[in-house]
Amino acid sequence: MTGPSELRRDPAGVHWVIIAPERAKRPDEFEPRPLRKPGGSSAACPFCPGREDRTPPEVAAIRPSGSAPDGPGWNVRVVPNKFPAVGRPDRAAGAPSPGLFHSREGFGIHEVVIEAPDHGADFSSLSTVAAGAVVRTWRDRLRALEGEAAWAYVQLFKNHGREAGASLSHPHSQIVALPLVPGRIREEIDAAVRFRAEHGICLHCRVLAEEDAAGRRIILSDADHAVTAPFASRFPYEMHIHPRRHAARFAEIGDGEAEALGALFRTVLGRLRRSLEDPPFNLILHQAPARRPGDASAEEESLAYHWHFEILPVLTRAAGFEWATGIHINPVPPEKAAAVLRRDSA
Amino acid sequence: MTGPSELRRDPAGVHWVIIAPERAKRPDEFEPRPLRKPGGSSAACPFCPGREDRTPPEVAAIRPSGSAPDGPGWNVRVVPNKFPAVGRPDRAAGAPSPGLFHSREGFGIHEVVIEAPDHGADFSSLSTVAAGAVVRTWRDRLRALEGEAAWAYVQLFKNHGREAGASLSHPHSQIVALPLVPGRIREEIDAAVRFRAEHGICLHCRVLAEEDAAGRRIILSDADHAVTAPFASRFPYEMHIHPRRHAARFAEIGDGEAEALGALFRTVLGRLRRSLEDPPFNLILHQAPARRPGDASAEEESLAYHWHFEILPVLTRAAGFEWATGIHINPVPPEKAAAVLRRDSA
Repeated sequence: MTGPSELRRDPAGVHWVIIAPERAKRPDEFEPRPLRKPGGSSAACPFCPGREDRTPPEVAAIRPSGSAPDGPGWNVRVVPNKFPAVGRPDRAAGAPSPGLFHSREGFGIHEVVIEAPDHGADFSSLSTVAAGAVVRTWRDRLRALEGEAAWAYVQLFKNHGREAGASLSHPHSQIVALPLVPGRIREEIDAAVRFRAEHGICLHCRVLAEEDAAGRRIILSDADHAVTAPFASRFPYEMHIHPRRHAARFAEIGDGEAEALGALFRTVLGRLRRSLEDPPFNLILHQAPARRPGDASAEEESLAYHWHFEILPVLTRAAGFEWATGIHINPVPPEKAAAVLRRDSA
Repeated sequence: MTGPSELRRDPAGVHWVIIAPERAKRPDEFEPRPLRKPGGSSAACPFCPGREDRTPPEVAAIRPSGSAPDGPGWNVRVVPNKFPAVGRPDRAAGAPSPGLFHSREGFGIHEVVIEAPDHGADFSSLSTVAAGAVVRTWRDRLRALEGEAAWAYVQLFKNHGREAGASLSHPHSQIVALPLVPGRIREEIDAAVRFRAEHGICLHCRVLAEEDAAGRRIILSDADHAVTAPFASRFPYEMHIHPRRHAARFAEIGDGEAEALGALFRTVLGRLRRSLEDPPFNLILHQAPARRPGDASAEEESLAYHWHFEILPVLTRAAGFEWATGIHINPVPPEKAAAVLRRDSA
């Protein structure tokens, strides 16, 4: 498809994108540059078994009963990030400063989930059991951090590959607990609440029903989940994973749901790897914040919002136009992306 | 400075950032990769003089009187983008589609401003006269496109270097005319209007006064402009260029202001080049949309909003956390960035 470009608004009304197949035909005077593969660099990897002393002491792990914390033998290990984006909790939060220049000392938690002992592992190479253990670990850490009154929002994300922002290739994901609800999350929730007020139904449930009926943007579908190429995809081969059961919070899924989701991630990330030669990607979770006692809006939000994961392959990069306008230019129509990612049905 | 991290809100309240000096100390198992310099690839460059037939016919140019359009001899040349992000205007706009999946056929204008005949030129290597001519050309094209009723907003931007999204190294900038006001622009204007309603003054004028008084984030200051490292910089070494005279629209500056701004860009981009070894960067303009007859909010917007340029060096990249939350993690405090960029006073 190299038809005309299209301006598309996402169903929530939060952003617009330009689907511009013509852009893919641009000449490029710079030579193509192969992605840098990590190679055999496990020699110095601080996340490999036997080097547990190179990370701060673990805060959680899945390990055989009887094995000692911070020793080898683990399946999944969670440690504080040694180079955190936000300050450690033993540092008192600065008081909000008055006036225009509002700031507070970085108060938060930044953890790393080491997803497997094998340096060369990948989500798609994990066993179903191991993949499910990673998803359960995510859920358990989110739930634990959300239980602390200091954190208004806890963000889970994964950067795969250097171009996606990873500085280490050992399979890992990250969790950041923040004292505020981020603007992007707030926007999505507010849009969902407005939609429900007007239409009496969850926006995401409605979109899924329409996507199921149309079929063109469905990548994978089963009783529990739908994987779609979103109508207003900002990035080429963007994928969203939605649970079919309406729920606002991932952190409250059961063990069975975590197992099923682990299996799904194996499949979906395996397809991405095979279809596009192991592209760098970001994986992010969007869910409603944990309910706080006395929070009147929490009930409404939990009826209106629907948790989901987004997989954002890094094949283009945001440039001047995107930063100026907030509108992303995507050269790959999601209908084409879905067709490519559907084809591989391994 | 490698102190604690800090959460900062931008004065407009539109976004938060995390200033995280610790992040700069992360180990990186991937080898450093030199930026790809364009080298002597002018041999096939479609923007070089003598190859005017490789672009669509010019829509504007600065050239000596008597020289023929689409021939050599020009100083600045504006041509339609051969691989446009938005469709050509001779294609009828699709009617907005009903329901959740709102789309319209990409209707817009995408132009390229070829800033100099010399393939290896750079803004900082241009003469003051040549730099002023580029700024005047920007202004004139914006004004011309804004004069067409179809366009609600016209965006000017420049991508320098491959990592910043450029596919050709010949110095150029781009202009995209859109049938809607982009969300990011709307957000900034709305925030400025709210601020003025509350405080009776332009937010940007107030911020400039406070920045002048504090001095720590001022990079360069003269009678006409202030160049600052913004308090809530999303990117390392981000710079904003503000005119001291309150005005909502760049497109309405006079010739003298354009000349002064051209000279300023030479200086500022020269400093960036020398201080950080010619980093890739995006340069974007933010201004209020052109007034339309009968638009009651235009008067208020023109009192509240203040046009400015933003220079966004590409030294980090947005990853999972940024896409998930909208909060950027910046390892370089703007106070440090300002000190570095102030030091070079060539």
